[in-house]
Amino acid sequence: MKVYNFSAGPAMLPEDVMKIAQAEFCDFKESGSGLIELSHRGKQFTEVIERAVANVKELMNISDDYDVMFIQGGASMQFAMLAMNLLNGKTADYADTGVWSNKAYKEAANLGNARIVCSSKADKYAYIPEFSSWEATPADAAYLHITSNNTVAGTQYRTFPKVDVPLIADMSSDIMSRVVNVNDFGMIYAGAQKNLGPSGMAVVIMRKDLQERTPANLPTMLKYSTYSENNSLYNTPPTFAIYLLALVTDWFKAQGGIAAIEKLNDAKADKLYGYLDSTDFYTTPVQKESRSRMNVVWRLPSEELDAQFVKEATAAGLTSLKGHRIVGGCRASIYNAMPMAGVDALIDFMREFEKRNG
Amino acid sequence: MKVYNFSAGPAMLPEDVMKIAQAEFCDFKESGSGLIELSHRGKQFTEVIERAVANVKELMNISDDYDVMFIQGGASMQFAMLAMNLLNGKTADYADTGVWSNKAYKEAANLGNARIVCSSKADKYAYIPEFSSWEATPADAAYLHITSNNTVAGTQYRTFPKVDVPLIADMSSDIMSRVVNVNDFGMIYAGAQKNLGPSGMAVVIMRKDLQERTPANLPTMLKYSTYSENNSLYNTPPTFAIYLLALVTDWFKAQGGIAAIEKLNDAKADKLYGYLDSTDFYTTPVQKESRSRMNVVWRLPSEELDAQFVKEATAAGLTSLKGHRIVGGCRASIYNAMPMAGVDALIDFMREFEKRNG
Repeated sequence: MKVYNFSAGPAMLPEDVMKIAQAEFCDFKESGSGLIELSHRGKQFTEVIERAVANVKELMNISDDYDVMFIQGGASMQFAMLAMNLLNGKTADYADTGVWSNKAYKEAANLGNARIVCSSKADKYAYIPEFSSWEATPADAAYLHITSNNTVAGTQYRTFPKVDVPLIADMSSDIMSRVVNVNDFGMIYAGAQKNLGPSGMAVVIMRKDLQERTPANLPTMLKYSTYSENNSLYNTPPTFAIYLLALVTDWFKAQGGIAAIEKLNDAKADKLYGYLDSTDFYTTPVQKESRSRMNVVWRLPSEELDAQFVKEATAAGLTSLKGHRIVGGCRASIYNAMPMAGVDALIDFMREFEKRNG
Repeated sequence: MKVYNFSAGPAMLPEDVMKIAQAEFCDFKESGSGLIELSHRGKQFTEVIERAVANVKELMNISDDYDVMFIQGGASMQFAMLAMNLLNGKTADYADTGVWSNKAYKEAANLGNARIVCSSKADKYAYIPEFSSWEATPADAAYLHITSNNTVAGTQYRTFPKVDVPLIADMSSDIMSRVVNVNDFGMIYAGAQKNLGPSGMAVVIMRKDLQERTPANLPTMLKYSTYSENNSLYNTPPTFAIYLLALVTDWFKAQGGIAAIEKLNDAKADKLYGYLDSTDFYTTPVQKESRSRMNVVWRLPSEELDAQFVKEATAAGLTSLKGHRIVGGCRASIYNAMPMAGVDALIDFMREFEKRNG
């Protein structure tokens, strides 16, 4: 049975990438060893990490004013690390649009001064507050932090706020899913396990001048300069995760780059939301203007039906459709690697399930 | 050509483990997805991480007084993290027996008070200083830190110092290579990429009562309690690294456990050192009593011959024999996964190379 895995992360990787990684798992480029067994200082891995960085730069059109770094600990470690490096005695502004943005805020508030400039928490994070309603970010703020896509609530920014301070975006669940202008940001970071590869690594894209803010006495592994000055090779990096990221970004390039991928992502999301809008059996709590193209959430008429739906879908090869444990309901994560056929199969199943239970 | 990979880390994994991981790479236990693509909260990965922890506890005979945690950032992150959690205003003692122990000391000294109680640095770290020569660790010290095996210099503790404060050991390059009494330690930590699995993760074994020292305001991801209270699942862990560690430790158990592995490790090291001692062409700078069973270092009569040796060995399928970039020369890392046949092939090649160049 063909399985489509709708997990929010770790998530499905492109089938072609999985096949390549499997084929060369025990013998990478006739080295007699798997890539996972090779030294991070050897010529084979050097080519891999250089390709990974070059692919990210090319796909996102990143200028030489920015560093691309691979850092362990996921986005959660970045919540603390960015505040440790960039607060520098100032106050940072945070947009509170979901559980992850709220965690990012809390880490900064624990380390220094942080302020929430807008929040949809009282409305269960069902939308991104309109920019006109946000408290203004003063020119002496350390930065403004946003979460470009909210994996749990299923919301996403369509445009980004314009401010005079560095804009920092957690793009864990929509990086490289659509074209963004990196120059609009001071820093972009993302856990790799949704659109870019496996868990165990964050990709950090950072304007070089921001590193000047880092306090001198930070621990080595918590300073961005440690990664930028050593091309993410100060200590042993997560080599297999970087290798898969190189393969995944090779695949993005083969698909025609991010613009082409965005087009397909829009088509996938439009089809799924179009179906949701056509029926009253499934309802989505997310405001139309804030709908995420990556994580589509919905509910059935009862929690019992939610559970039955997830169970029967799993049996039919449509896996990991259970909503996040915080909010319940159902969620389909349709990242770059999910083909249109997966969305079609999901809609067919939803239609058929409604017929039997509606 | 059969290849034996002597890399110091990332290092070779057991051949059987690599074959299992390859076979189920794209379809883990008939889930239709690779393990690397599955949610860290799903039942498949839950079984994997529980097995990984249980294997570590069983193989090292760890009591319930200790936590076993998986933390990203490698041993280098632990250098800072252990000091942040455990110094608590006190002074920590460090044994300076190699470049990594020196780095561990520096991270602690940057964060608080740290003191070197012995050092073989002036002698290029060619030995572990005798315990009788160490400055005594006072009863009010935060802990005493040692590096049980020094990967670069090729030295190893045969026994461990006895102190009245928690003994903390970086066992990155010899964990599970020999039987140790975990109860003699307050904390043991190890980057996984030598004996236990791929890079991108440290295994931390910590006496539970030590967590009481952690300052309340540490960032979430830098507190040990975050990992112990959430079974290393506060955020998305490096799932594939944990999976491989589970497979590697399954394999250790199938070999008869650590006592049996230690016996083979001793036999491998004895054979290689025995050969080195039988010739003047190859010389090892390491003092006999401090020789590492994991990383065997030697030099040839000239740097040119060092380089030629490494080049020809690589061509003969004996890879990654170049010494660490800091010290040069040659190094064979013979961790648990290296079979006796690899050591035999290395000695045969060394003998033949000496014949042609001696």
